[in-house]
Amino acid sequence: MTSPLVLPAAPLLEQYGEEARLCSCANDQLTLVFSRRHPFDLVELEQLLEAVGWSRRPVRRVRKALANSLLTVGLWRHDPRIPRLVGFARCTGDGVFEATVWDVAVHPLYQGSGLGSQLMVYVLEALEAMGTERVSLFADPGVVNFYQRQGWELEPQQHRCAFWYAS
Amino acid sequence: MTSPLVLPAAPLLEQYGEEARLCSCANDQLTLVFSRRHPFDLVELEQLLEAVGWSRRPVRRVRKALANSLLTVGLWRHDPRIPRLVGFARCTGDGVFEATVWDVAVHPLYQGSGLGSQLMVYVLEALEAMGTERVSLFADPGVVNFYQRQGWELEPQQHRCAFWYAS
Repeated sequence: MTSPLVLPAAPLLEQYGEEARLCSCANDQLTLVFSRRHPFDLVELEQLLEAVGWSRRPVRRVRKALANSLLTVGLWRHDPRIPRLVGFARCTGDGVFEATVWDVAVHPLYQGSGLGSQLMVYVLEALEAMGTERVSLFADPGVVNFYQRQGWELEPQQHRCAFWYAS
Repeated sequence: MTSPLVLPAAPLLEQYGEEARLCSCANDQLTLVFSRRHPFDLVELEQLLEAVGWSRRPVRRVRKALANSLLTVGLWRHDPRIPRLVGFARCTGDGVFEATVWDVAVHPLYQGSGLGSQLMVYVLEALEAMGTERVSLFADPGVVNFYQRQGWELEPQQHRCAFWYAS
């Protein structure tokens, strides 16, 4: 898989980690950055997940789940001092034979301009770099087409588990 | 979930760990023990998985996958010095909101007497004790009924993902 994601300038790499990538968006006033390293404010994270319609979860349990996750990715609206979290995804799994993507979210104010697709590219590249063989996710009926357009394959019988195979 | 699994005597707990449980079987000459702690010989493990018909995987990658797993369970034919691995299962996941069961195997010589069902009880009790909310697995068509009989629920549309909910 070749990446459409752009490497940010040195100051952003310092702030967001060396695996950080830019997320392109229609509004050129914004700088959006994918990061695997920038820490999360768990209240801000749950507010994001609530904004996309999911029910709030106890922060203590979310903290444990993130600590046990294989990969956590934030999409940040850049600010030198206080970046805002506008997207998120995490993965569990062994990182070798399989991984599963959870909690894929882009804030409603930032949806509809391809940020979700770039988020999935960033996630899959990170998993592929680990040597992960297969990635699965559980897609709601409303987003199955979104994942199929990106090359995810549904299992037979029209169920809602989608798989991605490392090239 | 109440456990039909029996606590072994002190010497076995010392050998297999405090979470060890006895696995009942028809042959009263055998002592079979579930353990989350007894170390695996990765060659013996891959031989077991081969015996149930899966293709062998590189030991280096298996070691990494086990290290990244949330839970690994061995079913051991007890011997004070050299226990033999006759069953296995492992789980990945965050251990909070979800976990997924992989590599469920009972050696063909030991199949057909309820060992697999007891193995799943042991696995689910361990996950429930962690506070895991939902457990999933990917069942081959041939074993879907096996899991349904144990209370696993298939998603709509007859697909092959089964879920277990913590009581």
